[in-house]
This record gives sequence, structure tokens and C-alpha cells, in this order.
Amino acid sequence: MDAAAEVDHLAAERDAALFDVEEMKVAWAGSRHAVEVGDRMARLVASDPVFRKDNRTMLSRKDLFKDTLRKAAHAWKRIVEPRLTEEEAGMLRLYGMFVPAIKGQGTEEQQKKWLPMAYKFQIIGCYAQTELGHGSNVQGLETTATFDPKTDEFVIHSPTLTSSKWWPGGLGKASTHAVVYARLITEGKDYGIHGFIVQLRSLEDHSPLPGVTLGDIGGKFGSGAYNSMDNGVLLIDHDHKKIPRDQMLMRLSQVTREGKYVDSDVPKQLLYGTMVFVRQTIVRHPKQFGSQDGGPETKVLDYKTQQSRLFPLLASAYAFRFVGDWLKWLYMDVTQKLVAKDYSTLQETHACTAGLKAVTTSATADAIEECRKLCGGHGYLNSCGLPELFAVYVPACTYEGDNIVLLLQVARILMKTVSQLASGKQPVGTMAYMGNVQYLMQCKCAVNTAEDWLNPVAIQEAFEARALRMAVNCAQNIGQAASQEEGFYERSPDLLEAAVAHIQLIIVTKNNSRTFAMFMPLHSSQAPGRLPGNWVHHTKQGALANEQLGKLYAQVRPNAVALVDAFNYTDHYLGSVLGRYDGNVYPALYEEAWKDPLNETVVPEGYHEYLRPLLKQQLKVSRL
Amino acid sequence: MDAAAEVDHLAAERDAALFDVEEMKVAWAGSRHAVEVGDRMARLVASDPVFRKDNRTMLSRKDLFKDTLRKAAHAWKRIVEPRLTEEEAGMLRLYGMFVPAIKGQGTEEQQKKWLPMAYKFQIIGCYAQTELGHGSNVQGLETTATFDPKTDEFVIHSPTLTSSKWWPGGLGKASTHAVVYARLITEGKDYGIHGFIVQLRSLEDHSPLPGVTLGDIGGKFGSGAYNSMDNGVLLIDHDHKKIPRDQMLMRLSQVTREGKYVDSDVPKQLLYGTMVFVRQTIVRHPKQFGSQDGGPETKVLDYKTQQSRLFPLLASAYAFRFVGDWLKWLYMDVTQKLVAKDYSTLQETHACTAGLKAVTTSATADAIEECRKLCGGHGYLNSCGLPELFAVYVPACTYEGDNIVLLLQVARILMKTVSQLASGKQPVGTMAYMGNVQYLMQCKCAVNTAEDWLNPVAIQEAFEARALRMAVNCAQNIGQAASQEEGFYERSPDLLEAAVAHIQLIIVTKNNSRTFAMFMPLHSSQAPGRLPGNWVHHTKQGALANEQLGKLYAQVRPNAVALVDAFNYTDHYLGSVLGRYDGNVYPALYEEAWKDPLNETVVPEGYHEYLRPLLKQQLKVSRL
Repeated sequence: MDAAAEVDHLAAERDAALFDVEEMKVAWAGSRHAVEVGDRMARLVASDPVFRKDNRTMLSRKDLFKDTLRKAAHAWKRIVEPRLTEEEAGMLRLYGMFVPAIKGQGTEEQQKKWLPMAYKFQIIGCYAQTELGHGSNVQGLETTATFDPKTDEFVIHSPTLTSSKWWPGGLGKASTHAVVYARLITEGKDYGIHGFIVQLRSLEDHSPLPGVTLGDIGGKFGSGAYNSMDNGVLLIDHDHKKIPRDQMLMRLSQVTREGKYVDSDVPKQLLYGTMVFVRQTIVRHPKQFGSQDGGPETKVLDYKTQQSRLFPLLASAYAFRFVGDWLKWLYMDVTQKLVAKDYSTLQETHACTAGLKAVTTSATADAIEECRKLCGGHGYLNSCGLPELFAVYVPACTYEGDNIVLLLQVARILMKTVSQLASGKQPVGTMAYMGNVQYLMQCKCAVNTAEDWLNPVAIQEAFEARALRMAVNCAQNIGQAASQEEGFYERSPDLLEAAVAHIQLIIVTKNNSRTFAMFMPLHSSQAPGRLPGNWVHHTKQGALANEQLGKLYAQVRPNAVALVDAFNYTDHYLGSVLGRYDGNVYPALYEEAWKDPLNETVVPEGYHEYLRPLLKQQLKVSRL
Repeated sequence: MDAAAEVDHLAAERDAALFDVEEMKVAWAGSRHAVEVGDRMARLVASDPVFRKDNRTMLSRKDLFKDTLRKAAHAWKRIVEPRLTEEEAGMLRLYGMFVPAIKGQGTEEQQKKWLPMAYKFQIIGCYAQTELGHGSNVQGLETTATFDPKTDEFVIHSPTLTSSKWWPGGLGKASTHAVVYARLITEGKDYGIHGFIVQLRSLEDHSPLPGVTLGDIGGKFGSGAYNSMDNGVLLIDHDHKKIPRDQMLMRLSQVTREGKYVDSDVPKQLLYGTMVFVRQTIVRHPKQFGSQDGGPETKVLDYKTQQSRLFPLLASAYAFRFVGDWLKWLYMDVTQKLVAKDYSTLQETHACTAGLKAVTTSATADAIEECRKLCGGHGYLNSCGLPELFAVYVPACTYEGDNIVLLLQVARILMKTVSQLASGKQPVGTMAYMGNVQYLMQCKCAVNTAEDWLNPVAIQEAFEARALRMAVNCAQNIGQAASQEEGFYERSPDLLEAAVAHIQLIIVTKNNSRTFAMFMPLHSSQAPGRLPGNWVHHTKQGALANEQLGKLYAQVRPNAVALVDAFNYTDHYLGSVLGRYDGNVYPALYEEAWKDPLNETVVPEGYHEYLRPLLKQQLKVSRL
């Protein structure tokens, strides 16, 4: 709430509310006390110019990060000021995962040694688990920690490029230490993933210690967002990086002076905080990542969950591409007709162009974002190209006619067509199926086997019945309203869906080319499962559609890369390290990272001004 | 395709393809010729350093725009070079909407005068239709063009802040002219929206002409994307801005020397290109925007289409907030139990934390993006805050366990529970409902009226029947596979859905607090419509759920703003000119625009280097 606000344009809205907002604030925050503390801290942050964030999207990457260091140093000053209560100070404090990891997995002795330094920011720690080639698959991490009984040390090593630690927040520029997760190897045996406290940078001048390569992984989605963070990359050279044995987190298991691996008798369940517990469980279910026979990791494309999300999008791309040819023909045809003063197909052409624009742009924007998510963490990096592709594409949903507005126009034409059916007027073109109203309103799905769903006649009937029934249902409901306009307004959400169903039918039926006959069913099989009510007359037919879909995924699988090759986009055009033609993504990701402006210097701008005084406990605390 | 690529990591994938990629490229591009021309131009663009774009996300706003001017000037050089065919040159040419508007709506004389200048870039034009307060509602545009018979001129005027032209690409910094859409007023009568060619900037020094205020509207979604464009704002002061009568686009209607408005006899349908035709149709259906009685524009929140997209998100926010309280309780409870060596609820707690994390973060990320789209064009501006909110939030779907991976863990626990049902083991806690398998597998929905959907018992049974049937179905299918693991892999897409259904049930049932009893049905009514198969035993019950949903929207409507107020977020925290507490969005949008670095100078950087030589036809064309 802006104290300076002079007018409240929403006052009438607030007066109309039928409940007590203050009470709801309490319910939302959990208690009256929480509301009050929250309000106090919000005012404090909002009134402090150092905490401004309205310029975030205009700062360069370097300035964004420097601003983060400034804010962190400033927050620390406020925390140690006597004017805040412990509870209030806690709201400004953020340690990330370094502290919880030591708390959960460190012995009492280790906690006593490391936590006070972390609390006081004498050291800055990060949580280095994820690797360039291994995200969710913790079991697949490659970094090793090999015990050397001669020196009583662990040798920490990144044996491959894909074993680089990649993503940890604070790793790129700010952290002095990390909890590094690595495969513990002692007496020649691999004991799986354990945590090790590793110093990364000099506490004197912040330079990376010998054997340690550190950098920022580059720009990320959004113009501000996580670009204020130094998500980092870390490569450890085994010739140099040795740590004392007591820097292995030893609450759950220990390595003795002699190199024996010993499990502690502490019940493991007790030691895990929620998030660590979640990770632990991932570790315990490795099968979803490794292959059954201990071979290489499963290719991402081989996961059925990826196929079920990605292949329908691929099929849609083809369907949209070829319905576009038909639309072009329709447009040329209507232009010729208009010259001959034949306006008969004008309205239908409008419905098709408006509706196809709306359905295809919305689906494509969603598909780009879905593809981005399917890339896991890397999809969030600008270098993968998808964040920019989304930002460039998504305005298409709004410009040249907002998609909702366009679909309502299609719905209006559908309602008009339905209302004329009674008078015996036969609809033509893409609306011709509506003339078949008697049959389509009562027909039942004839599918008996999964293969029946490959029959274009069955699919077309499914889409026709769905579209027509939705349209007729809307028309009936509108007919019961006080007026046409009132009814149209009240039923507009249903009308949108009816319009989409009609347009989807067009996409399916205008895609008859043999060229991609194999992909059409894949695209169209999506819909029957979502068919409403009594056309699919028992669950079995939905299950059959699903079954057939699974078989189609398997058919598409060997063709997936080639189907994308056929788009014929160049690497330059795509601008994506993940979409590279040669598929050699990891070196490309790695190389791209170093181009980020934050990597121009090893020690970041702002170190001397903000970070060093924080680490050296030399921040000037303002006095009251 | 990178010519320099040395390894092809996807070679095996390509060998596995079962169709001819080269043939598919031809099908995709439309012809072999199209493939060849496309390849040639792609090589040309990729090999030309001026067209590089890999640095887009790292450039400042100013540099991004300057780079656009450089590219435009360079493209023009390539276009006029003799080494490109006309077809190839056409692929580098982009005129936007200025040329099509004059082609479609200008008289032959007007076309003869203006088009050659536009083709040669002696003038740069943009299409100025959208206004700050009026996007899709073309009928609501406020800019006026009043004919003055004394001087034979039109007076162009922006009477209000909301009448500022807002969004046109190229308007902010580059354009010298615009087709401005304005209400034509002559002889005291308003004849609706017409197009007028208006000069904006001096052709000598590019300074804005008297009476014209011009600027860029500020940063946009994405770190590069549309930030290379100068989407602009234009305010026209009536004291200064007069244009000759012949700069009204007069193909469809004219104003005579005396000020008479005359419709031409040209059939209007003939004159509109697809997009313009779409717009024209929007103009013809003004009712969806204006109120019936000619009162003020309908509030966006009053559209049912907005309500049906926004209110379920609002209900979800409350549902997620309060299920969080329950989860906190569950966590504390399990911690206490663990201390007492009672591990009975550990597995269930894991399923709840993992599943709720996955379902709530995915839904919230989607909701933020949905809200952004519901803001129309303004949602694309950084100043509205939603682009950054999305970019900041969406990583939650990936970090701390990818959502897909987490849901598969939930599914694994569900499958285990189902398999134990046969042995008579009664599930407990959030899985207790699965013990009711006999009833839930065969029960029928008891809803007879729309109001029945308000009954928590009916809703809970709907969610329970759905979740259980999906889980049992998965278990049966897995049971038919060669092995458990094989079956789990094959059925993983279905398992994901079953896990989501189970988690949604938890969200519904753990939200019993009276505080928000009014919103729970709204949230949960979404699901019955999507219930599969034979639980909802005829379409009628789906329609009743839909009907009840509409009634709930109406109940939520007066409370909508107050429900958001209760979140108690400050303007500083939200950082959104659209989410302001006082709702006074237009002055805020306008004010924010001027803070963009591009607005530091009136004439943009790059004018002298790229724009002026282009306009003055003085670009040095490289000779062969």
C-alpha cells in the first residue's frame, strides 16, 4: 500500500467486498503478530533506497550483480543493528543451502566449527551438488573425493567436463566455500555421494585457490530475475585440491584415519530436513535414471514422460504448418470469389483466419515454454535460446487481435450457424459438418480396439461430435437467457471452448496430406481423451486412445530428431546451445558461459566495496 | 547446420529415422526451390557478422536498439545490391503495417505518392492504432481528427492521457511518419475510426515536429526479444498538429473540401487484407467492449472470460496457502514421531511434501504467466512486473527436485499402496481413502442440481473416486507388463496424472478452514468437469458443475480486489504499475516509460550513423 497514494481507483471495488479484509490478512499471514511484523519490515525495506528494485530490469548484468552485493552488505548492517528484534532480523537473513547442509549432515564438532563463521559471514558458502551433465540424477554425479591415507586427506576431482559443478547460486563470484557433493572413494571402493566442505577462494584477496576454476554460467531467463545471482561453474583439478579428512560431513557416515568407511548408527531419517530428505529419496530410487544393466544414462528422449509432453508438440508443429497451406488456398479462393462479387465464403474465411491465428499462436507459445521446461535447469539459461524464443513469440497471442477476442468472434459465427440450422439452411465449407446435426448429436463412438483410433473416420467423427455438441449446448443456454447479448456474455467461457473445438476440428481435417499421415493421428489422439460426456460411452475408449497414443510415441521416437531436422533451421537461426545440429551440447554450454560480462574479471566488481568488508567484519554499522 | 561441426552426436538418431529428411524439408518449406533459396539466404545471414545475434541478451537496451538500426541499414544495403534476386531481397525486406495500411485504405493517388517513398526508405512509417487505454477495443479509441473547413486541414488531437498512442513498433525512435487511427469528426459529427498519414519527425534532423510528444514505452519481456524494438508512445497537441485533408486515407470514404462525409461505393470487403479485415471485424462488433447503454467501458474484471481464467487462480492461491499450514503441521508431527522411533508416517510425509511442491509450483508458474496474458499488451511490459515475477518464480519447478521426478516418486508410493490393498493392509493418513476401494471403484456421482456441487461430500467423493481409479488403472496396466520397472516406465505419463489427482485431492480435503469456505468449491469445481469416464455418469453433471462454477464467479466478483488486498503485498514488493494498490495504472504506465534509457535522448544513438544515411539515400553500397 502506497502511503502517498492520493486517489484510490479501486475504492468502489473495496467497498463492495463482502468480507473483512483485515481478518483475511490475519488468516493469510497466520496471525495478527505476523501481519504486524510483516508490515513493519515491508515499510523498512520500501523506505530504504538501497533496497530499491524498480531499476532491476534496466541494469546490466554486472551492475545487477554488484547491486546484489551492495544489498547483501546493507542487509547485514541492518541485521546487526540493535533496533531490529531477532524475529525481524531473521526476515532479512538468507543463508541458502550451505548452512542447512552442515546442520543436517555435519557432526556436532563440525557444526561448532563452521556454523558460527557462516552466521557471521566470515565465510560465504554455497551448496554445490548439480553438475553440468547431471541435475535430477544425483546418483549420476561424477565428481570424486578419493581418500588418501598417506596424507589423511581427500582429493577432490572433476574428472570430466560434464562433472563441472553447474548452477549453484553464489558459486560463480561470491562464495569462499562450498559443500561439494562427490562420490566418496576409499580403499578402492565407491561409496556413493557424500558432502565435503571445500574452500574455493582466498579469504585475503578472494582469488580462486590453486586447482580451482570458477566462473558464472551466464545470463538467465528474464531481464532482471536470477541475473542478479552468480550461479556458478566449478572445475576441480585433482593435482591441487586436497582437503583434510575432517571436512567430509560425517554425521551419517565416517571415514576413519585408516580409510575405513563406517556407517553411523544415527537413524538416517532423523537427520534430514525436508529438502535434503527429498534429495536423499532421489538417490534411493536411481532406477529412473540409470539403465537396468548399468549402462550409460538413459537418453532424455527415451523417457515416456518426455515423449508424452514433447511428441504432441512436434505433431502440432506439423499440423499447424500444413493447415497453413490450406488457409493460404482458402484466402486466395475467397479473394477470387470477392472479385466475382461472391461473398458466400467471406464469413467462414474470417472465422478460419481468426480462429486459426488464436489457436495456433496460443498453442505455440505454450509449446515453447513447455520445451524450455523439458530442458530442465539448462532451459533457464539464455544460451539455450528458449527464453528469448518465448519472449519473441508470445506477443503473437495479443497482437493482431487478442486471441480471446478472436475466438469470441468465431463463437459468434458458430452460434449464428447453429441458429440457422432450424430454418433448414445448410452450412457449407468448414461448417458443413454442422448440417449433420441429427447424427452427430446422438452417435456413439464406434472404437473397440486401440487400433481403431488410427482410423481417420473415427477421429474426424470424434472431433465433429465434440465441436457440434459444444456449440449446440452453448446455443441452448444462450436461448434461455434474457437476451442474446446477455446470454452470449454469460456463456462466453463455454463459447471460447466451443470455438477452440471447432478450430481443432479444422486443423485435423485440413491435414490430409500423405506426407505426414503418420503424425496426424498422434496430434489428434490427444483430443478423444478429453471428449466430454456421452460420445465416448465408456472409460474403455478413453483408455484405448491412451494406449494407441503410447504406441504412436514409440513409432515417432526413432524419427524425432529427423522430424526436427526437416524444419531446416540453422544453428545461427536457432541461437541455442541445446538445439545445436550436432547435439554436442556440453562443451557449447561451457564455452558460452565464459562470454558473460560477469566473467571479465575473476574477482567481481563490488568485492572491495561490499564483500571484503563483510567477510572481514569491517562493515560500518550505522549508530542510532 | 554448422558447416564447421566436426562431430555429430546425433548421427545415430539420424540414422534411425524411417523417412527421408530431405523430402520432408521440401514438404515443410513448400517446394524444393523454397528450400534452396532459404538455405542460400540462411548462409548469407549467418556468415555476415552484422547479422550476429548471439550477443542479444547481453546488450544494454540502448545498444540493442542501435544494433537494430545498424542491421536495418545493412539489410537495405544487401537488398539494393545486384547480387540478390528479387525473391531473395524480399526475404530481407520488412515494412511492417504502414505499407499494407496505405495499400488497403489509400486511394490510388495516395498510394502513388506515399508508397515509393516508403519502399525506398525515404520515409519510415509505423502503424499507430493501439492507445494506452484501448487495445482490442478499437471502437473505444479516443484520438480525434477534426476537419477544419477554413484551412482544409484535419486537427489531430490526443485529448486524454489514455488516448496516447502506445505500442506501435518503430514509433518510439525511428519513424518519421505514422498512419494514425482517430475518430473522424466533421460538421460536428463523429464518423468513427479512420486512418490519417501524419508526419512525426523532421526529415532533416529527426527531431519531433511541434506539437508531437514521442518516446519509447520502456523495457519488455525477455532479455533481448522485443527490447531491440522501439515500441513507442505518441501524444498530439491540437494547437499544433494539423495535416492536409488529402492525408486522410480515402479509399473507403472521403471528406470533401466542404467537410461532407461521403462513403465510397467500393465494396469494403474487397479492400481489406487479412489482418486489416480482422481489425475491421473487431470494429463491427463493438458490443463486446462497450456497455449496452453507451456508458463507460466494461471493467476487465466483469468479463466472464476473464473471471473464468482468473478466479480459479485466485482460489488456488488461497487453497495453496492453507494447505501449506497443514503441511507444516504434518512435518512437525512426523518429526515428533521420528524422535519416538515411529516411522509409520514417514513415507506419506515424503509423498505429501514432494507432491505438493510439484503441483503448487507448476500451477503457480502457469498462473503467473496466465495473469500476464490477461493483462493484454501491457502484461508484456517490464513495468507491469509480471515478466520478472515469472522469471523469478519458474525455476521453482526445476530446483529442489524437478517436478516430474517428484511426481513419479509420489506415483511409486501410490502403486505400493494399491498393491498392498489386496493383502488387506489398510492405508492411513492422506491415503486412507484408498482403503475404501470397493465403494470408490463403483460409486456414481449423486449430483442432481447445480447446488449439489457445493456439497463438500460430493466434491470430496469426486476427487477420491478420480484419484483412486487412476491409480488402480495404472497398477493394473503395470501388472500386465513384463516387469514392474518396465511397466512403471511404460506407464509413466499416466502415473504422473494419477499422482497429480492424488495431490489435488489432498489440496481439497486439507482446506477445511471456515475462513475460506467460500472459495474452496470454486477451486475444486474445476476438477469434476475433467473427471474421466463413468463416475460422472452423464453429461448433465458436468454441465451442472459448469453452471455452479458460473454462479461462484458471480459471488467472488465483488470480493476479487479485497481477496488480493488480503495478501498484504506492498507496491514496493510487487513492483508492478498494473498491480498498484490504488489502481491508478495509466499515469503510472506513462511515467514509467520515460525512465527507459532509450528516452535519455530525443534523437536516438545511431541516427547519424545508420538512420540518416538510409533516409537520405546515402548508404554506401558495396560494389562487387
